[in-house]
This record gives sequence, C-alpha cells and structure tokens, in this order.
Amino acid sequence: MRTNLSVDGDRLWRTIAASAEIGKGPKGGLRRLALGDDDKAVRDLFGNWARESGYGLKVDRLGNMFVRREGTDPALPPVLIGSHLDTQAAGGRFDGILGVLSGLEVLRTLDDLGIKTKRAIEVVNWTNEEGARFYPPMMSSLAFSGQATVEWANERTDRAGVRFGDELKRIGYAGPEPVGGRALDAYFELHIEQGPRLDAAGIRVGVVTGGFPTRGMRIEITGETAHVGPTAMARRQNALVAAAHVAVAIDEIGWRYAHAEGKTTAARLDLWPNLPGIISERATLFCDLRHPEAAGLAQMEAEIETALPDCARRGRCKVEIAERWGFSMMGFDPDLIGLIRQAAADVGEPTMDLCSEAGHDSYNVATVCPAAMIFTPCTGGISHNEAEDATLEATLPGVNVLLRAVIARANR
Amino acid sequence: MRTNLSVDGDRLWRTIAASAEIGKGPKGGLRRLALGDDDKAVRDLFGNWARESGYGLKVDRLGNMFVRREGTDPALPPVLIGSHLDTQAAGGRFDGILGVLSGLEVLRTLDDLGIKTKRAIEVVNWTNEEGARFYPPMMSSLAFSGQATVEWANERTDRAGVRFGDELKRIGYAGPEPVGGRALDAYFELHIEQGPRLDAAGIRVGVVTGGFPTRGMRIEITGETAHVGPTAMARRQNALVAAAHVAVAIDEIGWRYAHAEGKTTAARLDLWPNLPGIISERATLFCDLRHPEAAGLAQMEAEIETALPDCARRGRCKVEIAERWGFSMMGFDPDLIGLIRQAAADVGEPTMDLCSEAGHDSYNVATVCPAAMIFTPCTGGISHNEAEDATLEATLPGVNVLLRAVIARANR
Repeated sequence: MRTNLSVDGDRLWRTIAASAEIGKGPKGGLRRLALGDDDKAVRDLFGNWARESGYGLKVDRLGNMFVRREGTDPALPPVLIGSHLDTQAAGGRFDGILGVLSGLEVLRTLDDLGIKTKRAIEVVNWTNEEGARFYPPMMSSLAFSGQATVEWANERTDRAGVRFGDELKRIGYAGPEPVGGRALDAYFELHIEQGPRLDAAGIRVGVVTGGFPTRGMRIEITGETAHVGPTAMARRQNALVAAAHVAVAIDEIGWRYAHAEGKTTAARLDLWPNLPGIISERATLFCDLRHPEAAGLAQMEAEIETALPDCARRGRCKVEIAERWGFSMMGFDPDLIGLIRQAAADVGEPTMDLCSEAGHDSYNVATVCPAAMIFTPCTGGISHNEAEDATLEATLPGVNVLLRAVIARANR
Repeated sequence: MRTNLSVDGDRLWRTIAASAEIGKGPKGGLRRLALGDDDKAVRDLFGNWARESGYGLKVDRLGNMFVRREGTDPALPPVLIGSHLDTQAAGGRFDGILGVLSGLEVLRTLDDLGIKTKRAIEVVNWTNEEGARFYPPMMSSLAFSGQATVEWANERTDRAGVRFGDELKRIGYAGPEPVGGRALDAYFELHIEQGPRLDAAGIRVGVVTGGFPTRGMRIEITGETAHVGPTAMARRQNALVAAAHVAVAIDEIGWRYAHAEGKTTAARLDLWPNLPGIISERATLFCDLRHPEAAGLAQMEAEIETALPDCARRGRCKVEIAERWGFSMMGFDPDLIGLIRQAAADVGEPTMDLCSEAGHDSYNVATVCPAAMIFTPCTGGISHNEAEDATLEATLPGVNVLLRAVIARANR
C-alpha cells in the first residue's frame, strides 16, 4: 500500500462543519434528535453528498441509510463503515457524526486516488443511535442484527406519545429495503473516545479491543398520592423519597467499584404526578452499570438487588426491578483489530488499546459479521455535552488508519 | 333564627354529582386542571345555575367568578362564600367543589325560605387554587388580595409553555371586572378537612382556628452533563444524585418533627436532560415544610439549610435555595369563628377545633377582610387522590352551620 495514502482532512472538516450547522444547540453543540426536522435535514445533506459522488443510496424500513461505492467483484459481501448522525438533546458535533463522515471521506479519497477495491464499500448512518428521543438507543442496529423486529421499533414512542414509525414516515425515511438479513464482510466504526485517556496521553489512535459489560435497569417505585399538608409522615408513601433512596444507594455502589473502573448511574427519573402540592405515587428510575469485567458487573448488580429492600423500607414504597438489558463482555474481531494495528504501524502512529465504555451500534453489528472500532481523541474526554470537541490534527491519523484498514479488508 | 333552618341536602348532593361528571378521572375522581376544557365546562354549569336562579354573575380579569344574591341594603359590602372548582391531576370530587356548591346551596335555601338579608351574599369560584397546572397554587386569590398583579398571573406558564393569560382568554373567562380592590364584609370557606381527625372522631363540624405555618422552597441543583459510560465516578457531577441526597435529607428532617405534627415533603423534582444515557446537569426540587408552630417551622427550615452543603458535597453539585414562599402562623377572625361556634351550638352539633394543614384561598382573603373556615369530614382523611370521598350525612351539618353563620353575618 502507498505510504503517502491519506484522506483529505480539510474536506473532512468541512463536512463536519456543514453537519454542525444543522440543529445547532445554544452552547455551540448540536440538538439533533432522531427523526426530527434537523435529522431529516442532515440525512438529506448526506444523501446529496452520496449522489453528487455517484454512489448508490439505499434506505431500509427503519431509515438506516447505506451509501455504496461498488467493488470490482459485485458478488462479494461489502465492507461496511459507519456510525450515526443523530445526537443527544445537548450533544456534540462529533459523537457519531465523525464516524459517518469519515466513512464518506474514505469513499471520496478512493475516488480521488482512483483506487478500485475488490469488495464494495458501504457507509451507513444508523437511525436513532442515541435513544435520546425514542428509547432504547441503538435500536435500528439491534433490528438490523435480527435481535428486534421492525414492528417493535415502529411502535416505540417519544415522551409526547409520537410513534417512531409515524415520524419515520413523516420525514420520508421509511425506506423500501428490508432491515438486515444480508451478508456483510466486515464492519468498521470510527468514533471519538468519549473518555479522557487518548487526549491525556497524547495518543491519537485508540484500538478498541471490546466493550465494557453493561447493564441497564428500569426500577419501578409505587407509593400513593396524598396532600403534602395534612398527611402525617407516618401515613406517607412518597415515591420520590423512595426513588431518592434508590438513587443514593446506586451511586454509593458505583464509588465502591470506582477503583476498578466500575461505575453506576442513576440516570433518568420520571415521577407522577410530580407536583408541589401532592405526594407522588409513581417513580420510574433508569440506572446504568458498567464494569470492565463481567464478574465485577455481576457483583454490582447483586449489590443493587440487595440494597433495594432497604430503600423500599425507608421510602415506604414498593420498589421492583421491572426490566433489565445490557451487553455482556464482548470482544471485537481479532483479524480486524490486526488490520487496524498494521495500518497504524504503517503510518508510524502509536496506539493505545482501549475497551469501550459507551455503547455503540458496532456491538449489535458484531453479532452478524466481524466488527471493530477505532477511537480518536476528544478534548478533555468531554462528550454528551455541547462542549464536546476534537481537532483535525488529533483526528486525522485515526481516519487514515480507517482508510488503510478498509482498503486492506475490501481487497481480501 | 328558626331552629329548623336547613339547606336541601339532596339538591346539594345532586350539584356535587353533576360537577363530578365533568373531567372524570380513571379511578372515580376528577382531573379538572385549571383553564382546561373541563374547567370551562364546570364554570359554564356553575354560571348557568346562577342565572337560572336570577343571581348576578361577574367575572374578573383572572377568571374569578362571583355569583351575587342581592341584600336589602346595596350600599353595604357583601358577605363572600367560596372555594374552587378546579382539581388536582388526580383529585377528588369534593376538594374545593364542596365549598363553592355549598355557597350556591346557601343562596338557593335563602330563596326557598324567602329569607332576605341586609347585606348581599356572593359565592366565589377562585381560579387555579390547586396550582396543578399553573404554579403557584392560590394564585388568583393572591392577586385579589393585592399580593400579586394580574400581569404576573397572566405570564405564568404550564409545562407545555402555555400562558395562563392565553388559556384564560381561550376558554372565555378573562372577564372585565377588576381583580380585588373592593370592600368585603367577611369571607367564609367550607372545605373537606383533607386529614383524618374529624372522620376518626366521628365529629362532623371542624372549627378552623387558623393555618399551619408553611414554607415552600425551590432548590436548584447544578451539575454537568456527561456520558454515563466513559465518565469515571470521580469526574461526575450528577444533578439527579445530588437532588436525591437533598430529598432524603428533607424526608429525614420531617421524621424528626413528626412527633409534634411537623412534616416535610420532597414534592416535585424536574431534571434535565433526564435521559438514560446521560448524566443530568440540572435538577429543580420543590419542597414543602409544615409545622403547627412558627418556631418549629423555623427549626425545620434551619435544619434543611444546614443539611444542604453536605448534600452538595456528596452529590458533587452546586445546591442552592433559589426561592422561598409560605404562610406565617395565621389565625382566622375571632368574630366569624364565634358565629360558627354559635351556629353549631344552635343545631346541637359537637365541633372540633382544627388548624388547617393545607393551604386555602382563605389565607389570602384573610389579609383583606375577616375570614374563617369550616371543615367537614372526608373518609379516611384521603385527599388529593381520586379515592377522596365524603357522605351527605357527615357533610350536611357543616353546610347548615355555614348557612346560619352567613345569615347572621349578612344581617349585621
């Protein structure tokens, strides 16, 4: 492979800047919730870029967009690159977006350099990775990998009760293609680290070896409404207070595992009726546990189960774990990791091995084809925050590693 | 006064039943939020009843409705009876409603019996007593008593951002009359107790001597958004966790004063962005403190102030009391209380002295004219709950006491 092989960093940064104009947040980040008007606008822009370069564009029934540059042997399954263009409610300009637009930049670079690959290369924009509007996150790659149905996804609703399927149709992205069920050769996802290690170490390429085991829980708390005035303390069943006990207990468990990189989050709390003059009857608390080892995660989970009866007693409410989900310990494909290491070595770029602590669509795709990820630094490790930032200088080596690894795999 | 003087209990109960058809809740109670379509419907019904009986009806700029039966001396300030027809999000059929419709029943009984009074008697329906949609509660009597402006009230918004003034206009109840500023002779409010004492003791008439000192606080908590996955425990500032520490501390303080009838409520918690994948940056916690003695309330308040820095430290967020409101120790008018006691004695009904633990419009009205309240039993003390209930048998004596006290005052 040519030693001076490189993407056009300035062009990549211009596409990032063009994306950052759509759904601007008040503090310089993005608010581009899945299937909103701004999501439609960035999809249209991405589709136009694909058409301008003469690539194929297919949209499946969940709105996943596949931009395809043909290979010389159409019979072979393609190499897929991708991530997502939706953001958190107050998210950054790079989370997900960098992965999709780096994929596009890889295709454009191959055109510039007149490089043909044996396998086709496709770039995917997964619908609703963030889950900030329609729960859960990574919904469409879950369905793509056969772990959920299109019907289930279409029935998910946002807080206003709007159906996913209706919004997808409204913005014109309920495509005709079936969801998943086709052969893929490999999947590469480039993403900002969303943590501080690369940035702190001054290393620009993270080789992602796998994903942290993760457990989500929905905890339901049931009390009873009553007037805040005349209801004696001994007659109360305040779901807010019981939920507070649970949130404090969950946080304390996280601190006990922090030395081993474990962490717990009391992340979302919905209360009803949640008014100043009335004791709340219902609380729904979403919590999240992560630990680098499956055994550690199981211990944290067991500690939460042990803590809940005491929270119920102190809060005088019924407390139960209503739903659990998560990822087991997963490791990315050794062959793809090998290609990434080789590409970094070829460009003389030092790397750091990392285990992803955030969830990514690659976890789902890894269940149907070999998958791997490359991390690039984000300033101060800040993410899911409008202040999220990255520099071209710190990002470019990772994109070039992606380019080389993809070419190597696509010519296999 | 005639010893057999009595309202028509069956008619009163029919008006309660007619009201209970408007805005029915799923569990047999009412959901009739201020200025919604159901609030308009019950206002229309109340207005029609007034017109059918030939009473005057005036509506002020905040939608407060005044139904007037003239007296023989039009120059004298009227005696006012009233309460509210709006309800909590999941409220009962009696809270507030009984006070307004008992007032109407008093007027109708005077007609039935051909009784003329020297002073006019008016029945008021105060707008948005509950504060379940537009905060704060008792907003319109606050403005009526000159403690807030019409402009301030009109700018209050519900959670969807809808302005009070716009909704008032939409339902056709932004009336032409000025808010307050006119002479009143006295104000009587009959209300269910919203506590268990009368029901437990089998006593049907509560003489309300005053209101519990009450303190409300809005506590603002500021953390920082971050991704729940890669953000180490030591880098987090989770506003939900800090708010949970505050809620637990507030609840614990309530238990320490429960022996003296003190109580604290962590009542409403709003979080942002409140999503499963992201640490929340902002929390707003509304809390409520009540104690029968001003000194006890001040001690509870001081304990909360003392607890907050530790909650901030443990939750790693900024925590501050952003707003406080409340009622000092207040006592109702001795002359009106005397009339209520005399009326109960005249009908041979035992009474119990009570201090109101809930807030009522009468607290505001008491700042501009003599005011007093009568409590009637509610089953099991349950209120602000669809299961709230009352029987005619337990209610009728209180309404007859109201009738007699009002006649006595109106002939003064």
